[in-house]
Amino acid sequence: MYTAKHMKWWGWGDEDVSFNSSAHPGLWPYAKAVLGVEEEHRNTPPVPFEAAQVREAIRHDGFLAELRVWLREDQICDSRYERLVHAYGKGLRDLLRMRRGMAEGAPDLVLYPENEQEVVRTIRAAAQHDVSVIPFGGGSNIAGCLERTDTHRMAVSLDMRRMRRVLAVDKESCTARIEAGAFGPDLEEQLQAHGLTLGHFPDSFLHSTLGGWIATRSAGMQSDKYGKIEDMVIALRMVTPAGVLATRVVPKSSNGINVNHLCIGSEGTLGVITEATMRVHPRSELRRTHGYLFLDFESGIAAMHECVRKECVPSMFRLNDPGKTALSLAFKPPSSRLSQAVTRVMKSYLRVKGFDFKRACLMLTTFEGSKAEVARQRNQVGAIYRRFGAVDLGHSSGKSFESTKYDFPHIRDFLMDRGITSDVSETSTVWSNLVPLYKATTNALDAAILESGVKPWVGCHISHTYHSGASLYLTFACQQQNGREMQQYLHAKRVVQQSFIDHGATLSHHHAVGAEHLPWLTDDISPVGVMAVAAIKQGLDPGNVMNPGRLRPSAAPFEEWSRVGSESASRTSLIAG
Amino acid sequence: MYTAKHMKWWGWGDEDVSFNSSAHPGLWPYAKAVLGVEEEHRNTPPVPFEAAQVREAIRHDGFLAELRVWLREDQICDSRYERLVHAYGKGLRDLLRMRRGMAEGAPDLVLYPENEQEVVRTIRAAAQHDVSVIPFGGGSNIAGCLERTDTHRMAVSLDMRRMRRVLAVDKESCTARIEAGAFGPDLEEQLQAHGLTLGHFPDSFLHSTLGGWIATRSAGMQSDKYGKIEDMVIALRMVTPAGVLATRVVPKSSNGINVNHLCIGSEGTLGVITEATMRVHPRSELRRTHGYLFLDFESGIAAMHECVRKECVPSMFRLNDPGKTALSLAFKPPSSRLSQAVTRVMKSYLRVKGFDFKRACLMLTTFEGSKAEVARQRNQVGAIYRRFGAVDLGHSSGKSFESTKYDFPHIRDFLMDRGITSDVSETSTVWSNLVPLYKATTNALDAAILESGVKPWVGCHISHTYHSGASLYLTFACQQQNGREMQQYLHAKRVVQQSFIDHGATLSHHHAVGAEHLPWLTDDISPVGVMAVAAIKQGLDPGNVMNPGRLRPSAAPFEEWSRVGSESASRTSLIAG
Repeated sequence: MYTAKHMKWWGWGDEDVSFNSSAHPGLWPYAKAVLGVEEEHRNTPPVPFEAAQVREAIRHDGFLAELRVWLREDQICDSRYERLVHAYGKGLRDLLRMRRGMAEGAPDLVLYPENEQEVVRTIRAAAQHDVSVIPFGGGSNIAGCLERTDTHRMAVSLDMRRMRRVLAVDKESCTARIEAGAFGPDLEEQLQAHGLTLGHFPDSFLHSTLGGWIATRSAGMQSDKYGKIEDMVIALRMVTPAGVLATRVVPKSSNGINVNHLCIGSEGTLGVITEATMRVHPRSELRRTHGYLFLDFESGIAAMHECVRKECVPSMFRLNDPGKTALSLAFKPPSSRLSQAVTRVMKSYLRVKGFDFKRACLMLTTFEGSKAEVARQRNQVGAIYRRFGAVDLGHSSGKSFESTKYDFPHIRDFLMDRGITSDVSETSTVWSNLVPLYKATTNALDAAILESGVKPWVGCHISHTYHSGASLYLTFACQQQNGREMQQYLHAKRVVQQSFIDHGATLSHHHAVGAEHLPWLTDDISPVGVMAVAAIKQGLDPGNVMNPGRLRPSAAPFEEWSRVGSESASRTSLIAG
Repeated sequence: MYTAKHMKWWGWGDEDVSFNSSAHPGLWPYAKAVLGVEEEHRNTPPVPFEAAQVREAIRHDGFLAELRVWLREDQICDSRYERLVHAYGKGLRDLLRMRRGMAEGAPDLVLYPENEQEVVRTIRAAAQHDVSVIPFGGGSNIAGCLERTDTHRMAVSLDMRRMRRVLAVDKESCTARIEAGAFGPDLEEQLQAHGLTLGHFPDSFLHSTLGGWIATRSAGMQSDKYGKIEDMVIALRMVTPAGVLATRVVPKSSNGINVNHLCIGSEGTLGVITEATMRVHPRSELRRTHGYLFLDFESGIAAMHECVRKECVPSMFRLNDPGKTALSLAFKPPSSRLSQAVTRVMKSYLRVKGFDFKRACLMLTTFEGSKAEVARQRNQVGAIYRRFGAVDLGHSSGKSFESTKYDFPHIRDFLMDRGITSDVSETSTVWSNLVPLYKATTNALDAAILESGVKPWVGCHISHTYHSGASLYLTFACQQQNGREMQQYLHAKRVVQQSFIDHGATLSHHHAVGAEHLPWLTDDISPVGVMAVAAIKQGLDPGNVMNPGRLRPSAAPFEEWSRVGSESASRTSLIAG
């Protein structure tokens, strides 16, 4: 049976793939300059596999004996390796711990079900034996969605990757029934055999699953065309301790509360999504990404908004602010003498046109469809962009983006090897609030990092547009405070999240609540909203079997939030109390 | 203070408005012919107001004393008239009862809150005093959403019409914050002052409210352009017995379970929606509806689907089957000699083109936008239609539709005055299932009506398209079985709903669950889905104060379903057991 590979136990991507800095020779000099790194670099690698601390597993023999009735030995794993790779997601706090070998959150057991019936029996047995179950897709989440909270009872990681088939395709209706454990590339390959695509391409595409996307309300890069994952779900099946919740394959309904939406975003707290019938699309003949340069961030935002108003939206908008634009340039592959010369000519031209490279912003735009459709879209969007002062940089920056778009998460590991923390926080807001939110939050983040005594780097891009607003995605980096890496990070993270909430935005546009954003959930959905979510949990999972602790803010939310592990907790005294 | 008028206590529309049969001289002869009416007509008017039976009100003096602390006398009504107009919605079973003066479902008291604080205090007091609360918008629902189920305690109708203001408009972000009691025309007039429209125009537009639309997952005629109401809600506030649930004005989020969707479609069972921030749009310069004739239903459906595939969707598709097409022609206003002559010429032309009027289908299509945009859309859609064999009938049939589109519900009263039952049932399904579902359901419905010994008339239209499917809307009529009107109706209704469910469709696309569709809820959303909905109810409204009995199927669903009132229950022995 085909099984997707696990990512590195301590970082992003396949074991044998790491960030190739020689393919991006400009990146490290850029990082050193903007972060004020003086020595060549500090060497802060992860500990070796053997040094990782995995606590003794809790064994529940009665539960194990039952499992063996319906699962084969190869579906039941308790090796050190299996426990380690299922210990956490890939959030910054996860990586800080794993790189130091602190894997207290490791589950006691890992199970690989192969069909829904096995999931049903496993969840039922877990409920009977008071064993907790943490559903695991690709383990790619960066919000602490897999963080184990209760350590007094056995915890099982339910790894869904063997349930990976496209079960049925209705080509006429453009729907596909897909098992939840299918990874991005596998799922797209199976759909491609029918000439179809789901159109969901998050940064984590290579290492995440359909079920994970649905459970976390994920968004892909082409969401401007294809929508967010919640817009694509037509029907689903979710195994809960109370039984299987199943909905019908209908485009829209008025059947009371839409129970699809109780499962979407439930982050494993109610059950395990085993399959979904998704809206799919004929594959586009052509996909082309172009780069455009705007005079400043504001005019780029105004141009995006005008495209939305004119209902002339490409399949991806990605507008970098000046910081992110500089990073993109630093990230470019080494260029030939000829292209260097072209770049020089282009730069002179742009200077003449009034561009100031400290303020200029790169907008990546993807067009998709038939050749004629792509040409038409490009003309329409290009005309709007020109009205807002943009210059078309052509296809090369787009090609560079397309060829490296899944590599970005590797940079974090590369920088962490060099004593640098980098992370992201994202949100969404209405058009009228984008610029105020951007200014307030980048300023607050700059100040928060400065407080820890190091130079901040903060960049931003706007993407994922809607009729009424868009997503704002911040990237930030700084040199680590030796021995206070976690506190330093938590302080910055807390400031950026608080700014989102204080300025009317949401805790996350597509990264889920997890452990990282939990302290802001009550502000975001109101205390009664939190009660409602808790009520569903109480109804379907009264034994608190499913992913305990998630979506349920405690009375003192920041206390729990800053307790990221027993070892670190003992060493931690928070900056922001 | 402006307050929208109540509809007739026994039927549709304003007291002084009724169906003008002389403006539609062809309708009654058509109805007589297809339904086999032999005498001129039976005379079956509603009983006079004085004859209506309203049971003695349950009074709870403690509750009333509290109300008087924050409500004025004119906000607290217990007159016979007020109780009667709030007794039911406008479903067929509601009308059958009301026309006979059977108003057992009347609430004991009617309240008119004017702000959220009054709603909060009222709901809190109701919970304390064990008084049930049925939120009331325009009272236009046709699924039994207002049917009172418990008669042992005081029941209050909470009429929201005084909370009717557009509170704020963010023109840049195209959002408007609107109080939930605003009626369609009032809301559109307030938005028009800003050059905006919500774009939600259900058949009930004149007599329904924003809160009602959200609570029932309504769809407007132009949903092809503007979406269903759930697609338009950005944020909302709902007063529950546990407090106020409030969400943020953000376009999209990943904040766990989307609690907006716990309120949307909750049908008054969790609380009262007091306001919502809605997606709004600049008003279109032009809106034009054209008629097209297709050779048959199948080619019309194929043409709609092709438009959806080509992403060239007008603001309204409405494809009538041959029965509904004949009804549309019979419904036309009287025509001049000249236009009669034109029609004759047109008919000859169509016969030459191979049209068989027993199979031909009228497609109404609305284009919206600037003049240029409307012309462009019409060309594109027209080209696709022609490829599927359609002929453009021009603007006159469209004008006739536009001028009468809110009149259809009046026909039901006109026919009931003449001993004829007519009603509608609608659903949605995927494209591949539309024709099979249509055939199976119309056949089943024909047979069910025939069983009662009378001639059936069944028509259908397809509208509200989506990427993966569309809505199928059935209209049916027959002569009433004297003394068995209710049983006859329930038998037909049961057959059509069962066919929807048996053929994979949903219990309703936009008419809500109410009492009429409740027996199919478990099939539709699965037993665990029903449990989840009950769990939210238990969490937010443990005292079962809010619209008791709704969204909660009983163990013997059809028993309760057929018990439509004490009087009728005693007289009823169901055909379909």
